[in-house]
Amino acid sequence: MKTDIDYMSMAIDLAKSAKGQTSPNPLVGAIVVKNGTIVGMGAHLRAGEPHAEIHALKMAGNQAVGSTLYVSLEPCSHHGKTPPCTDAILSSGVRKVVVATKDPNPLVAGSGVDKLKDAGLEVVVGIQEQEAIQLNEVFFHYVQTSRPFVTLKTASTLDGKIATCTGHSRWITGVASREEVHDLRRMHDAILVGVGTVLSDDPELTARHAGSIAGKQPIRIILDRQLRTPLNARVTQCEDAKTWIITTSASSQKKTEELTAKGVMVITLDGELQINHVLAVLGERGITSLLVEGGAEINAAFLQAKAIQKIISYVSLKLVGGKAAPSIFGGIGYASMDDAVRLVHTEIKPIDEQDIRIVGYPQWMVGRGQ
Amino acid sequence: MKTDIDYMSMAIDLAKSAKGQTSPNPLVGAIVVKNGTIVGMGAHLRAGEPHAEIHALKMAGNQAVGSTLYVSLEPCSHHGKTPPCTDAILSSGVRKVVVATKDPNPLVAGSGVDKLKDAGLEVVVGIQEQEAIQLNEVFFHYVQTSRPFVTLKTASTLDGKIATCTGHSRWITGVASREEVHDLRRMHDAILVGVGTVLSDDPELTARHAGSIAGKQPIRIILDRQLRTPLNARVTQCEDAKTWIITTSASSQKKTEELTAKGVMVITLDGELQINHVLAVLGERGITSLLVEGGAEINAAFLQAKAIQKIISYVSLKLVGGKAAPSIFGGIGYASMDDAVRLVHTEIKPIDEQDIRIVGYPQWMVGRGQ
Repeated sequence: MKTDIDYMSMAIDLAKSAKGQTSPNPLVGAIVVKNGTIVGMGAHLRAGEPHAEIHALKMAGNQAVGSTLYVSLEPCSHHGKTPPCTDAILSSGVRKVVVATKDPNPLVAGSGVDKLKDAGLEVVVGIQEQEAIQLNEVFFHYVQTSRPFVTLKTASTLDGKIATCTGHSRWITGVASREEVHDLRRMHDAILVGVGTVLSDDPELTARHAGSIAGKQPIRIILDRQLRTPLNARVTQCEDAKTWIITTSASSQKKTEELTAKGVMVITLDGELQINHVLAVLGERGITSLLVEGGAEINAAFLQAKAIQKIISYVSLKLVGGKAAPSIFGGIGYASMDDAVRLVHTEIKPIDEQDIRIVGYPQWMVGRGQ
Repeated sequence: MKTDIDYMSMAIDLAKSAKGQTSPNPLVGAIVVKNGTIVGMGAHLRAGEPHAEIHALKMAGNQAVGSTLYVSLEPCSHHGKTPPCTDAILSSGVRKVVVATKDPNPLVAGSGVDKLKDAGLEVVVGIQEQEAIQLNEVFFHYVQTSRPFVTLKTASTLDGKIATCTGHSRWITGVASREEVHDLRRMHDAILVGVGTVLSDDPELTARHAGSIAGKQPIRIILDRQLRTPLNARVTQCEDAKTWIITTSASSQKKTEELTAKGVMVITLDGELQINHVLAVLGERGITSLLVEGGAEINAAFLQAKAIQKIISYVSLKLVGGKAAPSIFGGIGYASMDDAVRLVHTEIKPIDEQDIRIVGYPQWMVGRGQ
């Protein structure tokens, strides 16, 4: 006998199958169950196409009458690109609706559930909720904050170094880890580095390995207070990938024009480059997910601003040493070990006997990080 | 049908059962097999007591005639605290002897095997050799080099820090990891730190949790060039554990006498404190295993001297940041990432969702560490 949790887990698995193709919409899956038998299933596949519930109800047809619908996200009750799902549910004859989690948008959260309840349906909310939220962590964060979901990617030695004392950093991690990073880039709307990384490494910052979505290249974003990015830097070649440089009024108009002529978009902010201001601007411009691949100072700025939602840390099983060799985070850091930021919901995976991948979520506290 | 590898693995498992109680002797296990049936088994239990082969042959009795003996270390052919095992093997009627690895002492290696071969027995060497060497890694290293087997233990945040920018370091890792470290201390003849750690943390450096060997406390060794160890430091309390301070002629005679009066042994070396010189002195004084728990500079000195046989790294799933916060290794470090020291035969284990324990062996190369 399957439980609500079993059916909801299936719905979440269905949702996952469309990973990478629904943006800017969330991943959603649905299952219709009648008398212990699955009579319909569906997932949202692409923006503009039917929602998961509609596919599942269509498959169920007349069998939907008296059935239970499991859906990984609260059904919509408003007209968007498609008609409201609540209408379709009500007209299908479904008797009970199980929802993993409410709509993350605080303005509409609960309205779909309320509409179904008002029509007399039994509605249960909160089954496999954490899994459903994590499935759409980027979407939830963006809808709730209007800022991109920030993933900090780091690559360091076991002793925490991102370069040697001379600045040499190629390569810290092995081939398998570096290939993963290219896939990771492809899954983000944008990648961010500081101008220091551009000056020292002259990276291309593209996703070189073919991913599931042919041709999608994240936007390259450079934080560059004084527009020090050289005109011959690889990131200024904008044929394959876009580049945005975020700068301040401290930079010259001439350099702005030269970079613009090369196809770079230069965004000038008032005052100094504050991370939270930068994120607000990126959010306004539709960046929902940002992969930060900064050097030590950029990483420290994001840490200090508590502007990291997720960390993906590649730790190479190597020792390099050096008091002057840069660590993952520059800046001042926390004064007390009690204030250190703990990572939760961590996932640890060895990669090719050369590296370890550690994925986790910083547990930001109002006061102490512990 | 069991293979030579199966029987040798059993012999190694038998050996392991006496872990921690055979010092200064190695762990050895033996199995006697006749017509596919195990007719005898044994392990060396304590120094001065019979070797593994003797126990196994005694259990086999007359059944040893025409049998095969599996032993995880080459049988001895000389008179030590017990008579030579080769004599007992020859008089037992064993027909074939399978040895995992030869005696590590280069002066006697092979003599036991030769004696058995000369007497007409079939002898096979090298079955499960790596496992057998690792089983007695400390013993092998000490016999071959007359220096202690050095294990570097580190505790750092995910960003490689062993303290915050203010020097605060309690606690980096969780309770479970810290308890493991106490067990680790108990398994070593000595623990080594620099005087910097004594001055900043005033540690007790004892094994506080009860281990398998009641009362055994490792010797505490402090590298202290100028005898700056305070007379009221915890490590100068020598009731429960011995303390050796290794110093140079730069230290005062008066301080030497004051420390000696408290029960501390002060060892004065000529010239500066070179790690390899220190290890030679410790080896002469019978220290076979050394756990280095140094600060950044002590760790760097061991790294630079390539004097680390094994590393046990506790990495806390925390971020603390800080350019000035000390990393695992101070010093200059390697200039090129190609020279970084790779860890091999690594074992990665999450501890209590708070830390990761990484055990590995530095792959020292004559030239490049890669």
